Amino acid sequence: MTKAKGSTFRVLGIDPGLHVTGYAVVDFSRGRHSIVEAGALRTAARADLAERIRQLYEDLQAVLAETTPDLVAIEQLYAHYAHPRTAILMAHARGAIMLACCQASVKMQHLAATHVKKSLTGNGHASKLQVQRAIQGLCKLPRLPQPPDVADALAIALCAGEARDK
Amino acid sequence: MTKAKGSTFRVLGIDPGLHVTGYAVVDFSRGRHSIVEAGALRTAARADLAERIRQLYEDLQAVLAETTPDLVAIEQLYAHYAHPRTAILMAHARGAIMLACCQASVKMQHLAATHVKKSLTGNGHASKLQVQRAIQGLCKLPRLPQPPDVADALAIALCAGEARDK
Repeated sequence: MTKAKGSTFRVLGIDPGLHVTGYAVVDFSRGRHSIVEAGALRTAARADLAERIRQLYEDLQAVLAETTPDLVAIEQLYAHYAHPRTAILMAHARGAIMLACCQASVKMQHLAATHVKKSLTGNGHASKLQVQRAIQGLCKLPRLPQPPDVADALAIALCAGEARDK
Repeated sequence: MTKAKGSTFRVLGIDPGLHVTGYAVVDFSRGRHSIVEAGALRTAARADLAERIRQLYEDLQAVLAETTPDLVAIEQLYAHYAHPRTAILMAHARGAIMLACCQASVKMQHLAATHVKKSLTGNGHASKLQVQRAIQGLCKLPRLPQPPDVADALAIALCAGEARDK
């Protein structure tokens, strides 16, 4: 049973990607947070783009149905201009993610990666490792969260949830 | 009743866009083509991005169910690098379009806009008006097809269908 209880506010953080989408479900209650579930939704690199989009969409539908978040926080739209191919592929994945959230009637919030990194580490351009370390400390994890996409999803969820919980 | 008959090959051409997605359903049979249906799927500019993606997805699902194409031809992935914001928004729409096609088990073909324009007008960088005029002539239409997105969708369908019908 993973439904949120009474006064708890549940956030699903998403770091969208076509190959790996990191996700993290975090509960917030009276200034405290606890990780409900976190992981990576992966698509087969050999599959064609449409099939990968469908896989991601269906996997995310399952996470939404299972965890029923109050809010989905997702990395901001206009990132990665310097890498247009990556940005365009990510936007395909993001379209399917937003569709699944909209169909599940979950409110969405879009956060700039720099904003998330800055609020977490003090540096808007922190490296992946710095984000992983910050998350390890904040969440008192025995090991670095892996892959980095999961750490990013946790970072997004924490950033959105703590702003809400204040 | 708009199902394709016996030897007819039916192509759904799509010019994807978040605001307006042009679509055109064209039947090909023994070197001849006939327009079954063409139009524009529009989303409300005031709605948020997720709602617009859902609207487009649902409208396209209806077109797919109604017309049961043998092939969907859609504008190529890596266009519009010069306009990253447009490209990224279009990719969100494209992700939802590809998801709907994949769920309907329709084969997809991706065509570069320059290839479509060149095969239709002889010029890979033809203007919207030139494409509209070429389509008007080829399809013996009494008026210019409007909006240009519909002409583009017809161009994509003709390009894909004629290559298949040869």
